[in-house]
Amino acid sequence: MRIFFAGSIRGGRQLIPTYLHIIDFLKSHDCTIISEHVASQVLEKTEAKMTEQEIFEKDTTWIEESDRVVAEVTVPSTGVGYEICHAVAHKKPVLCVYEKGAKVSAMVLGNTSKYVTAIPYSDKKQLEETLQDFLEK
Amino acid sequence: MRIFFAGSIRGGRQLIPTYLHIIDFLKSHDCTIISEHVASQVLEKTEAKMTEQEIFEKDTTWIEESDRVVAEVTVPSTGVGYEICHAVAHKKPVLCVYEKGAKVSAMVLGNTSKYVTAIPYSDKKQLEETLQDFLEK
Repeated sequence: MRIFFAGSIRGGRQLIPTYLHIIDFLKSHDCTIISEHVASQVLEKTEAKMTEQEIFEKDTTWIEESDRVVAEVTVPSTGVGYEICHAVAHKKPVLCVYEKGAKVSAMVLGNTSKYVTAIPYSDKKQLEETLQDFLEK
Repeated sequence: MRIFFAGSIRGGRQLIPTYLHIIDFLKSHDCTIISEHVASQVLEKTEAKMTEQEIFEKDTTWIEESDRVVAEVTVPSTGVGYEICHAVAHKKPVLCVYEKGAKVSAMVLGNTSKYVTAIPYSDKKQLEETLQDFLEK
């Protein structure tokens, strides 16, 4: 299964360890993560060599080419919000996960599209169970 | 002209004075702001009485019913990102404005849709000129 992983880049990088954990879990369950760079510590250096248009085209095309999208939405991010909507427009199932208690947008929590599911987690075990369920659906 | 104004709500409310300035400027230029509540100091209390689904349906419907969208994208916001993409999907011209130097998403800065324009401002005069240009197009 080809998964586009979405996480905050310019909105704040404090959750990189969680992003890495999600990506590692999905990879260990036979998924290919198209956007593994999102959890890279050197991402911003890599993307600095690309134009803004190249980054936009790359990310939107990758979403279109994916089977499903997993978004970590704890850290507010304009890019992640855009990507979730782009995925919905292309009929991709999107799992949004977030730390319990985080102030998550109503565009995510209240999303009435059948493609979007939003589930909080209290610890890594819960997060993994949620990811596992999403893969088995 | 009916304008949907998008600004950060749960992502952070520090730019409410700017949101108010934009809304007042647009209203003084014969625009109706459908989503004036975005700049309300009591918004979160009002929305607390609605379900997440009601907020989602209200905001997406308002975008669909608008003529154009103005988004202030300085503060990272998953909701604003979602709304910009939703507006593009419905062929609404979207003006994204941001404080010069802000770390704005490549989904905005590099957006290759003909509907999205992103312009920084250094002061209120520049911001007003950008809004004026958008209205005259």
